[in-house]
Amino acid sequence: MKVFIAGIDGYLGWALAQYLTVRGHEVAGVDRYLRRQWVEEVGSVSAMPIYSMEERLVAFREHFGKDLLFREGDLLDYAFMRDFLADFQPEAIVHLAEMPSAPYSMIDQEHSVFTHNNNVIGSLNLLWAMREVCPNAHLVKLGTMGEYGTPAIDIPEGFFEVEFRGRKATLPFPRQANSFYHLTKVHDTNNTMFACKVWGLRSTDIMQGVVFGTRIDEMGENPILRSRLDFDQCFGTAINRFCCQVVVGHPMTLYGTGGQTRGFLPLRDSMQCLTIAIENPPAAGEYRVFNQFEECYTIEELTEKVREAATAVGLPAEVTHYDNPRKELETHYYNPDRQNLIDLGYVPSHDIVAEIKIMLMDLQPHRDRILAKTDILIPDIRWDGTHRRSQALSEPVKS
Amino acid sequence: MKVFIAGIDGYLGWALAQYLTVRGHEVAGVDRYLRRQWVEEVGSVSAMPIYSMEERLVAFREHFGKDLLFREGDLLDYAFMRDFLADFQPEAIVHLAEMPSAPYSMIDQEHSVFTHNNNVIGSLNLLWAMREVCPNAHLVKLGTMGEYGTPAIDIPEGFFEVEFRGRKATLPFPRQANSFYHLTKVHDTNNTMFACKVWGLRSTDIMQGVVFGTRIDEMGENPILRSRLDFDQCFGTAINRFCCQVVVGHPMTLYGTGGQTRGFLPLRDSMQCLTIAIENPPAAGEYRVFNQFEECYTIEELTEKVREAATAVGLPAEVTHYDNPRKELETHYYNPDRQNLIDLGYVPSHDIVAEIKIMLMDLQPHRDRILAKTDILIPDIRWDGTHRRSQALSEPVKS
Repeated sequence: MKVFIAGIDGYLGWALAQYLTVRGHEVAGVDRYLRRQWVEEVGSVSAMPIYSMEERLVAFREHFGKDLLFREGDLLDYAFMRDFLADFQPEAIVHLAEMPSAPYSMIDQEHSVFTHNNNVIGSLNLLWAMREVCPNAHLVKLGTMGEYGTPAIDIPEGFFEVEFRGRKATLPFPRQANSFYHLTKVHDTNNTMFACKVWGLRSTDIMQGVVFGTRIDEMGENPILRSRLDFDQCFGTAINRFCCQVVVGHPMTLYGTGGQTRGFLPLRDSMQCLTIAIENPPAAGEYRVFNQFEECYTIEELTEKVREAATAVGLPAEVTHYDNPRKELETHYYNPDRQNLIDLGYVPSHDIVAEIKIMLMDLQPHRDRILAKTDILIPDIRWDGTHRRSQALSEPVKS
Repeated sequence: MKVFIAGIDGYLGWALAQYLTVRGHEVAGVDRYLRRQWVEEVGSVSAMPIYSMEERLVAFREHFGKDLLFREGDLLDYAFMRDFLADFQPEAIVHLAEMPSAPYSMIDQEHSVFTHNNNVIGSLNLLWAMREVCPNAHLVKLGTMGEYGTPAIDIPEGFFEVEFRGRKATLPFPRQANSFYHLTKVHDTNNTMFACKVWGLRSTDIMQGVVFGTRIDEMGENPILRSRLDFDQCFGTAINRFCCQVVVGHPMTLYGTGGQTRGFLPLRDSMQCLTIAIENPPAAGEYRVFNQFEECYTIEELTEKVREAATAVGLPAEVTHYDNPRKELETHYYNPDRQNLIDLGYVPSHDIVAEIKIMLMDLQPHRDRILAKTDILIPDIRWDGTHRRSQALSEPVKS
């Protein structure tokens, strides 16, 4: 199939281009390198060295024997994006071009407005462009499990049937996002659902858990084919950040009690799931939601998994609790469904410790890159709109 | 109380400034006159003549014996708005500064992006400014009953308790908006709820029905104190548009069967309700929702009310069904609550025919203004993204 990836230079996008190409799909994509700028802006760097798109395209051609059709640009540039889609005529469009960080969106007024502009207007432009030039393409849109928040009931996949005052209806499951970033994804969800209804577009809206991992097998051993991996408070998600902390001997930074439960999945499972969605498109006019994660863990359980993997590869691993810069429930019910992808053939890889061992091995050669940035490991972007570095609530403990 | 009105030059804002002033409140406001521009852009004009803000301010001072503190500007200009709020230190902020038309938001990509920018970014700026300079003020935010769509169950006020798989939770009622305009209001609702939660702001989110009416008593007989009244396909809401059509002898334009049911309220009830909300603020950190309408009617029932009033004032009234430019259910269950305002003392005026008679009398002297624009009475902005003038599905009938 012809697949267009928006955000092809990113953590997921660069891996997906390779994963799809190996499976015989024809890939094109756009990127404006904003992720590289944002990480630099917050004073950090990718733990895994990343190369320029020019170098990436050369390595891609050498490794896979195929050209990757790439143009530098942005979903905010409507004419550019529409014309590219009109030329390429994709069968699937994977939208990975959003600003993906909750803390970044909470920095201040300017960053929260930027996030809304980039994410909501970018996605809205994509919907209009699809309507205009490729209305039969399948939009695989990256949402987040965080759209649902942490309600006290099970989380279905997008919709549920409720009885209220004696009448029944199937309704969108209420979203309770907990950052401006997560809210922009909710806004996109609502806009996409509407575009499918009024224009007959088709879309799979992926409510994805938190992704971790340094590689997929398709990358081989060529460093230019590796994806970025961030460890700062904005773009470093839990397991990725913990692994980088362990590699430099810094205690893992637990926010609050660490009882927060979330869904997680390795990068290779994310690629598997996105590909399943692409290869099994919905009908015209259909808007469907897939919850996409491998397993749910509390953040404290994650630190235990990282410790287990670290011990196996001979690294010490400590944990410190810090006061939580976010406003969130630290103990809560959490039971989301994830049946739709299983029904379509998703086989969870189900070995988080083995995956973390690979990560620690991949990261160790880049210890100095992380060490140079350890001043940014303690969060200071707070949900109350202030900026104050979190304080340690416990002595470092070997978890 | 000190009340700040964003959008003070508009249909509701200009009336509210007067209504509040008569009740002893101190009013300030901003406007960038965009409504005047939009109506001109779509080729129309206010049926009631409207005067410049300079003339309005003079008439206001003469009539009410008080100055209205006004500055020209926009919620998109963050520093301007924040500094005005910091100076004025309002106790209540009434946000009427959104682009309010569903069809306008559906014209094309550019208009839907504009609507998102104006409404979502403007409201987001307001939340940040409140956090920064007046966190104790009460935000009275104008949402719309259209946020809920037309679900097959009762519509509560913002939240409902559901049982799902044996567990219970109180959740936001799912929104199913049916235009990009309505979607922006949903986005604002979600952002406002979050700001109350993380910053402790207080807000009343008004899910308002469709407003009609040419006057409130506080305006007296001075034409400069009258609010605008639109009748075009974008800014002319059902009853206002029907009255203008009757005044020029044009058949009332019913979209489809006319079985669509909505909540409606006269301008005077809207003023009463907004003032009740302002005078009864929620606690710090509280986000509450008021459904604000007087009565529900099908669109067809409205044409009967207009006919009844027209007959009483000696005007003939006809109705023609046109093919519906929107994608919406034309027959559906509709049973929204509106208890919160009643509990706080709202007394519905409950005489729609009398109100429509006043409107027809007020509009008759301005028949020529409407006659000059009759070419815009048939809608051509379609929900499928195309533009084609609706066709009459029936001969004009005396309804």
